[in-house]
Amino acid sequence: MAPQYAPSLRSRLGPLLFVLQTGFILIFAFCAEVDSNVNVNGSTFKDSYTDFQDVNVMVMFGFGFMCTFLVRHGFSAVGFNLLVATMTTQWAIILNNVESWYYSGKIRLNMRSLVVAEICTVSALVSIGAVLGKTNPVQLVFIALLEVSGFVLNEWLLLNLLKVRPGNSMMLLHIFGAFFGLTVTWILYRKDSEQRFEKEKADHKSGLFSMLGTVFLWVFWPSFNSALLSGRSPVRKLECVCSSYLALAVSAVTAAAVSVIFNPKGRFNLLHLQSCILSGGVAIGVSMPVVLQPWEAMLIGFAAAILSTFGFHLLQVGTTIKHGNCVLLLIHPKRALNSRSFLFFQIHMLLPNQ
Amino acid sequence: MAPQYAPSLRSRLGPLLFVLQTGFILIFAFCAEVDSNVNVNGSTFKDSYTDFQDVNVMVMFGFGFMCTFLVRHGFSAVGFNLLVATMTTQWAIILNNVESWYYSGKIRLNMRSLVVAEICTVSALVSIGAVLGKTNPVQLVFIALLEVSGFVLNEWLLLNLLKVRPGNSMMLLHIFGAFFGLTVTWILYRKDSEQRFEKEKADHKSGLFSMLGTVFLWVFWPSFNSALLSGRSPVRKLECVCSSYLALAVSAVTAAAVSVIFNPKGRFNLLHLQSCILSGGVAIGVSMPVVLQPWEAMLIGFAAAILSTFGFHLLQVGTTIKHGNCVLLLIHPKRALNSRSFLFFQIHMLLPNQ
Amino acid sequence: MAPQYAPSLRSRLGPLLFVLQTGFILIFAFCAEVDSNVNVNGSTFKDSYTDFQDVNVMVMFGFGFMCTFLVRHGFSAVGFNLLVATMTTQWAIILNNVESWYYSGKIRLNMRSLVVAEICTVSALVSIGAVLGKTNPVQLVFIALLEVSGFVLNEWLLLNLLKVRPGNSMMLLHIFGAFFGLTVTWILYRKDSEQRFEKEKADHKSGLFSMLGTVFLWVFWPSFNSALLSGRSPVRKLECVCSSYLALAVSAVTAAAVSVIFNPKGRFNLLHLQSCILSGGVAIGVSMPVVLQPWEAMLIGFAAAILSTFGFHLLQVGTTIKHGNCVLLLIHPKRALNSRSFLFFQIHMLLPNQ
Repeated sequence: MAPQYAPSLRSRLGPLLFVLQTGFILIFAFCAEVDSNVNVNGSTFKDSYTDFQDVNVMVMFGFGFMCTFLVRHGFSAVGFNLLVATMTTQWAIILNNVESWYYSGKIRLNMRSLVVAEICTVSALVSIGAVLGKTNPVQLVFIALLEVSGFVLNEWLLLNLLKVRPGNSMMLLHIFGAFFGLTVTWILYRKDSEQRFEKEKADHKSGLFSMLGTVFLWVFWPSFNSALLSGRSPVRKLECVCSSYLALAVSAVTAAAVSVIFNPKGRFNLLHLQSCILSGGVAIGVSMPVVLQPWEAMLIGFAAAILSTFGFHLLQVGTTIKHGNCVLLLIHPKRALNSRSFLFFQIHMLLPNQ
Repeated sequence: MAPQYAPSLRSRLGPLLFVLQTGFILIFAFCAEVDSNVNVNGSTFKDSYTDFQDVNVMVMFGFGFMCTFLVRHGFSAVGFNLLVATMTTQWAIILNNVESWYYSGKIRLNMRSLVVAEICTVSALVSIGAVLGKTNPVQLVFIALLEVSGFVLNEWLLLNLLKVRPGNSMMLLHIFGAFFGLTVTWILYRKDSEQRFEKEKADHKSGLFSMLGTVFLWVFWPSFNSALLSGRSPVRKLECVCSSYLALAVSAVTAAAVSVIFNPKGRFNLLHLQSCILSGGVAIGVSMPVVLQPWEAMLIGFAAAILSTFGFHLLQVGTTIKHGNCVLLLIHPKRALNSRSFLFFQIHMLLPNQ
Repeated sequence: MAPQYAPSLRSRLGPLLFVLQTGFILIFAFCAEVDSNVNVNGSTFKDSYTDFQDVNVMVMFGFGFMCTFLVRHGFSAVGFNLLVATMTTQWAIILNNVESWYYSGKIRLNMRSLVVAEICTVSALVSIGAVLGKTNPVQLVFIALLEVSGFVLNEWLLLNLLKVRPGNSMMLLHIFGAFFGLTVTWILYRKDSEQRFEKEKADHKSGLFSMLGTVFLWVFWPSFNSALLSGRSPVRKLECVCSSYLALAVSAVTAAAVSVIFNPKGRFNLLHLQSCILSGGVAIGVSMPVVLQPWEAMLIGFAAAILSTFGFHLLQVGTTIKHGNCVLLLIHPKRALNSRSFLFFQIHMLLPNQ
């Protein structure tokens, strides 16, 4: 399919990236400066730097390699992920500091602004994963920049107009990423539904690369969940890390159990594992402010893994019958992530508010 | 072979995991709470967290990918490793806190209890590696839980009844893992000796994944050796890290040298490298309390690599002649690890006690 | 080709490694001791340890897997890299402390001496990458040890005789590595020019492993650039990390843009991406002392990526016509790295001195 859109892509992607990048450099030239106060939010430079590196390795490495599950997309997945993530992070740094830019004329760079920008980028990468293999890079870049803009606007509206408490911002990320990704998938799905099978095939060899990225995400998810918490309350950070770890551990075990029960030969379904071992971390990230005890975290991980494995299994079977067996196989990890967040949004509503 | 045990597995593994996981959640519900004092053992939360993440990435990622050397086991190795490690860590958290549970009615979760639990898990993963490819997941889960129970009991007996000093606990880990693994291998080996060749074949492509896990273990081994040392004595930690690094460096060079000498074409034997570059780290972990100077660490790394490369080479050749060339090829990294620990147990006995 | 040099290799490599390793152990036995003062250069033990681990994972894992792009060299690349890096680090520890050895009779080991030694090793690995596939391990070990000796001598001469400021030492690394690598390539290239095609072929599957190493280097490059800065001035470290991150992000976007424009089908050239996304990090490392604002860092990343992608594209095309299409394909990431550093040496000269 590539040669079909090649000429247009060539004439568009290169200049587009140049124009955007030059624009970012100009904005930074007039407005950005490195913060002279390194101890932001109660953490020393070194502490925030390790937080940043954990999130950075998840965004650039974990998400990139998690998306290598498609045979013909191994390399592009990593490359597109890196391209989109670096573009989006620069854009998110600017957007997140619009307010301080407006008041003081300066975008202040510090470890925290980089971490916040990368977490915004994650909301875009979650949606991007759902449409890999049906979109060209120009579309990907536009979707990502649009999504981050919407995400930051949405967060600003919720925090300033609806007075939502900042502790729920991790919830916003997953919910917004979920709805945005579902909308984009729905639009693209209607445009070009039944074709392009070849690019969407999964493969065993590339599956190991994908598992590699997934395990990395699994290991560093507690850092992701606790990255925005203030260094002034280490007890809060410790609770968050313990809860995240237990929820992730329980969801890994539960996803394996459900997967074996579903499989007619009693084997692990590798797509189940890849899609669902992270569900506990996502769910606990969403419901963190109301989780007080370790067993609550474990229960949430347990429920999240069952829901997401069931959801993945049933949705996949459903669409296999209706639309051919490739479409949902393609969007699996993210659709699962999405439906999971959506379900947990509702569960979260039922939990007592903090 | 899989379809043969599939029905029984399906009927057993899923429910087993559900029952165990529900049990763990219940125990945590009644007894566990997050420690309100985050500065355990002289380290701040952030310092213990980076220790924990280093060990966590070794356990979930390093050991998982190290075991991908078998052609038909790449994916299962990573999946089983994750499943077993997450189950075992939860179980080890409970067991390690039985005493505090008995006295205060509470299992206290903090960074240190997670690190100790993951280190107990390593003792199980070392044994598990030896029996991959001949066991089904139900057996793996039982072996791991049994081993961790034995390990914790053994440590408790040694510390409380025989009054062994805690500084030697890393030695206990390797010795116990070694003897347990050897026993299990010996039992399983008698049951089904000469069959199942296909699942035990190694491969060049998957070899690169295995090397990936091994290099990760190599890089983070100093963190593993120093994770349990108190943050109050950074000099002790520095000595431990320097010794571990030097021993690992020397054993990597020496393993390469011995490997080239053994190979008739003068090439590196990749299995030698994979099995033996870690030997220095294991040996130094065992003999840490009595190592005072950098050169002693280097000498131990040197001796460990020679012993383990020789041992691996001779054992493999021996069994190649006796039992077919697949059995020891299968269990290579762990058998090597085991025999190495065993040998070092004896060397350790000869060293002057602290 | 291997069997041709096999007998000589076998008779040489093993004993050579044994002799060198024994020599290192003897030197350490008489002179090395662990520093009793753990707070070097204004950083606590834990802070320097995380710096060390970031550099360590780059050296052993990142560079090793970055060099797996050749079909027949995946495994050897990782193995050789580990062997050369461990040898060279030991040698660099000794050389870097020759002065303190001369005055106090002791080589003092601490986290900083390990980090400095690994950074010296990088200068050797940069050159080694350029000659992989045309050299046997004996040559590799000699080249690496020779280069590190030259590097340390060169730095000592510059610092003590020419009174260059220490802030520029990262520049020295890349410049020295560049010229040394180019010289070695030039010498080897004349000796055996037009043969050995097979070992130099690149491959798509191994390309993913290579991308894995490259992304790791990309993620941890800010740690590399800031590792030698004093912990006493966290603002300087923060500026360095922000500048490095922005330069890397911009060079990733720009390299993708230039790559798409060059490609007749409008696709990413994966070799371009691999070679050039790191250029911003290298360039900013070289010019760090004179970069004051974020936009300067971004502009340098922008220029570095354009120069290195152009350079790589043109050099490769040029040599494709002249000398057969394999030679520069082989040495691509490093040649690009080299020419980049060379170009930035000149740019650096034009910038106002600090």
